[in-house]
Amino acid sequence: MTDTTIFDDPLVVAGESFRSRLWIGTAGYPNQKVLLDSVKASRAEMVTMSIRRVSLAGQGFDTVKLLKDYKFLPNTAGCETARDAILTAELAREALETNWIKLEVIGDRETLYPDVQELLKATEELISRGFTVLPYCNDDPVICQRLADLGAAAVMPMGSLIGSGMGVANPANIELICKRSPVPVVVDAGIGTASDAVIAMELGASAVLLNTAVAKAADPVRMAAAMGHAVDAGRLAYLAGRIPRRGRAEPSSPQLGLVGS
Amino acid sequence: MTDTTIFDDPLVVAGESFRSRLWIGTAGYPNQKVLLDSVKASRAEMVTMSIRRVSLAGQGFDTVKLLKDYKFLPNTAGCETARDAILTAELAREALETNWIKLEVIGDRETLYPDVQELLKATEELISRGFTVLPYCNDDPVICQRLADLGAAAVMPMGSLIGSGMGVANPANIELICKRSPVPVVVDAGIGTASDAVIAMELGASAVLLNTAVAKAADPVRMAAAMGHAVDAGRLAYLAGRIPRRGRAEPSSPQLGLVGS
Amino acid sequence: MTDTTIFDDPLVVAGESFRSRLWIGTAGYPNQKVLLDSVKASRAEMVTMSIRRVSLAGQGFDTVKLLKDYKFLPNTAGCETARDAILTAELAREALETNWIKLEVIGDRETLYPDVQELLKATEELISRGFTVLPYCNDDPVICQRLADLGAAAVMPMGSLIGSGMGVANPANIELICKRSPVPVVVDAGIGTASDAVIAMELGASAVLLNTAVAKAADPVRMAAAMGHAVDAGRLAYLAGRIPRRGRAEPSSPQLGLVGS
Amino acid sequence: MTDTTIFDDPLVVAGESFRSRLWIGTAGYPNQKVLLDSVKASRAEMVTMSIRRVSLAGQGFDTVKLLKDYKFLPNTAGCETARDAILTAELAREALETNWIKLEVIGDRETLYPDVQELLKATEELISRGFTVLPYCNDDPVICQRLADLGAAAVMPMGSLIGSGMGVANPANIELICKRSPVPVVVDAGIGTASDAVIAMELGASAVLLNTAVAKAADPVRMAAAMGHAVDAGRLAYLAGRIPRRGRAEPSSPQLGLVGS
Repeated sequence: MTDTTIFDDPLVVAGESFRSRLWIGTAGYPNQKVLLDSVKASRAEMVTMSIRRVSLAGQGFDTVKLLKDYKFLPNTAGCETARDAILTAELAREALETNWIKLEVIGDRETLYPDVQELLKATEELISRGFTVLPYCNDDPVICQRLADLGAAAVMPMGSLIGSGMGVANPANIELICKRSPVPVVVDAGIGTASDAVIAMELGASAVLLNTAVAKAADPVRMAAAMGHAVDAGRLAYLAGRIPRRGRAEPSSPQLGLVGS
Repeated sequence: MTDTTIFDDPLVVAGESFRSRLWIGTAGYPNQKVLLDSVKASRAEMVTMSIRRVSLAGQGFDTVKLLKDYKFLPNTAGCETARDAILTAELAREALETNWIKLEVIGDRETLYPDVQELLKATEELISRGFTVLPYCNDDPVICQRLADLGAAAVMPMGSLIGSGMGVANPANIELICKRSPVPVVVDAGIGTASDAVIAMELGASAVLLNTAVAKAADPVRMAAAMGHAVDAGRLAYLAGRIPRRGRAEPSSPQLGLVGS
Repeated sequence: MTDTTIFDDPLVVAGESFRSRLWIGTAGYPNQKVLLDSVKASRAEMVTMSIRRVSLAGQGFDTVKLLKDYKFLPNTAGCETARDAILTAELAREALETNWIKLEVIGDRETLYPDVQELLKATEELISRGFTVLPYCNDDPVICQRLADLGAAAVMPMGSLIGSGMGVANPANIELICKRSPVPVVVDAGIGTASDAVIAMELGASAVLLNTAVAKAADPVRMAAAMGHAVDAGRLAYLAGRIPRRGRAEPSSPQLGLVGS
Repeated sequence: MTDTTIFDDPLVVAGESFRSRLWIGTAGYPNQKVLLDSVKASRAEMVTMSIRRVSLAGQGFDTVKLLKDYKFLPNTAGCETARDAILTAELAREALETNWIKLEVIGDRETLYPDVQELLKATEELISRGFTVLPYCNDDPVICQRLADLGAAAVMPMGSLIGSGMGVANPANIELICKRSPVPVVVDAGIGTASDAVIAMELGASAVLLNTAVAKAADPVRMAAAMGHAVDAGRLAYLAGRIPRRGRAEPSSPQLGLVGS
């Protein structure tokens, strides 16, 4: 088997195909050069950006231009109602000429935890308006199923709280969601370091979305490269089929023969 | 920063330099072809093999020939006394023309747990005989310090029991050992999947040695490729400096402005 | 401080006061004697039972009689819609002459995971009909807040899947919910052994509800006694204020003086 | 089964029988009254104290007098060689008229990690001098076996670093040691809160020794009471035989019948 065949494993979302299974956020980098170098080092093909940032600051459109070679996924970060999220998505479609939207509707400013009721409403409405909807949700398998039933292109359950760096807080739930989901599962939020991304992929995630873990690392470019390897490592390990965990030892070498036996 | 500079980070052990931080065992593969393909896919430069296997079976020397392009690290797997381990190391030196030896002296056949008293004795004696000694030990920071003081070229604390796939059982101990060790720390034994190898590297290990996780995976070649990415991911993340773990959320995007605020 | 003052810490739910913080389910015991002995050994004052079991089998009313000295909390286990849960609650009120109801509305037969949308609907309706509603929910802090806002007498977030014995899967979420909740938080489902119950209480839970961990233990009565001690241990530890977790040692005894210093 | 028969489970060490399975250290309390109240609230029957503290300060003998109703276990905290530990043990025997000794020989002042080589030497010598030796050791199953072979009355593997509050760092090792040990296993060091003590007991420990977790808690007396319940909870749960951990749900109530099915 060559490296080519090992990696012939594209991610397909809403009919589009991606080689990379790492999606990366664009906020909070020290400067535009570090952002661009980080995205490159990560080998990501998809980047996400808050519409609030695009619209509020001149910097927003600069970032869009800077990352013109990447698939752009606008998001509705900061929205607290279905209504606001829908308006924001419409703004994004007009400004950025894409009908893809990462849908965030938060239920609480302090934890940025999703409001699943508003999220379901906004998902339904945006799909009826022709959007390709990728909702950021909690790790509730029933809600993930509903979102897929409504026609979400992927579901994006949280690993843990946004920016918390706590990794995958509830691996059993993420694994359950991945096992059952009819659409790609993208673990989004909470990734703190490379092992968190690997664990998400080993649980069966189709991709990982992260931002703070790279943008706020001491060396963002190096962490971005780490994350690129991490999603590959996790995906390959998932496909390869790991050995069982045992409470006991299992020799790899023969224990008898030769000296002293 | 280019990919070249990111990876300009060689591992140096006993004066020899390696690009890869993955060391791989050669036992238990379905066949010689899978073994060779796996080692290639892993990008490892160092392979280890039990002297018992070399000497007992014709297959042993076949494997040595098969892997002639790799740095060969014979090991004393199965030895239960310093005396046996020393004899085995001498056999290895004669047969394989290397004075490198991965020293295993187990205190118990069932758990394959190291016998640190015999290990210290054998380390001292083999160093006096001119060997480059890499002892497989437990995760005891005092024992690791003693081994380094005796002149071990590296210390190889266990992640968990050999073949158990339980990963790094005591991350605090491994981190402590890595922080203080004057010689490279190679986490050896217990690695079950890619995330375990990443975690070992993130804790500060210089390299990881594994065997069963690849040899007994459902698809060894794919798992070997996973492990190659895993050690790179873990090393880069360690160097990059991760964000702190927080109990609370931290927005990556601005929370105010535009729609609905 | 005497044992009396240490334990002067009643749990108050909907105006009723309880000394015990352990609520116990009545299903799946080997026989009625073991059930009764277990409830006694646990020191629980509140027991819960599925209305389906009460109504379906003669055994149901036997159990109600058997446990006549305990506060009886009927539950709507097995209901999949708000409508069914409301009807079941009405049946319970009539048959058992209590307006307390543990509200379960599941979204999936296989995982028994709550359906939060139907749960919110049923909670609102039952409160308007004068019930004291204690909803079994997921560990979503936004949903828990909504349930309390609707007037739930307590919220009962899951530790992990019903009967799974996986304990508190997401401690950070449970801790967050406990910190913010205006009503008592009862961790319900997933408790497997005594330490799980202690952990739930140390995170700030007001009480723990469990069933399978006791009913299906090898020795239910002994496990029931264990659980009684566990909730006391966890509650006291929570109130006592634990020492911080440190990565390093901290001597309890002086390190200098006398022999050899 | 009555509460009496449930608790008819004495701990026997070196022929002496104890009802309580909690051993408690006496250092670092805010004052003598809190110390005494804490020991009472914990229901411990055995207390330990550093000989250095007894000998150095007037306070030492005061504490011995204060706790005259408890079994006194002097310890050699702070000793770094077998020689010092042996001298300290002899001082303890003379001053306190007990031949019981908790043997600590540390290999490193910063981590207070045991020096297993010196520990083995001191254990052998003290046993030959008629002491009842209870060595504080690491969680190495081979070392624990050696200590028992030498005649130690119990082995006292660490949960984690002294005073660290990290709990049982390596549960698999503690469980392995408990399963095999011919003498009682007392988990000593690292306990931070009640759940840590429960976990140690659920793994099969015969008893738990702790100090800082109580002495430095915000409310030592309440934490002492918590620890008393914790060891009972853990012991009972261990004897009761817990349900298995499952990745899936398991209903405790029937899922069919009555309303809506």
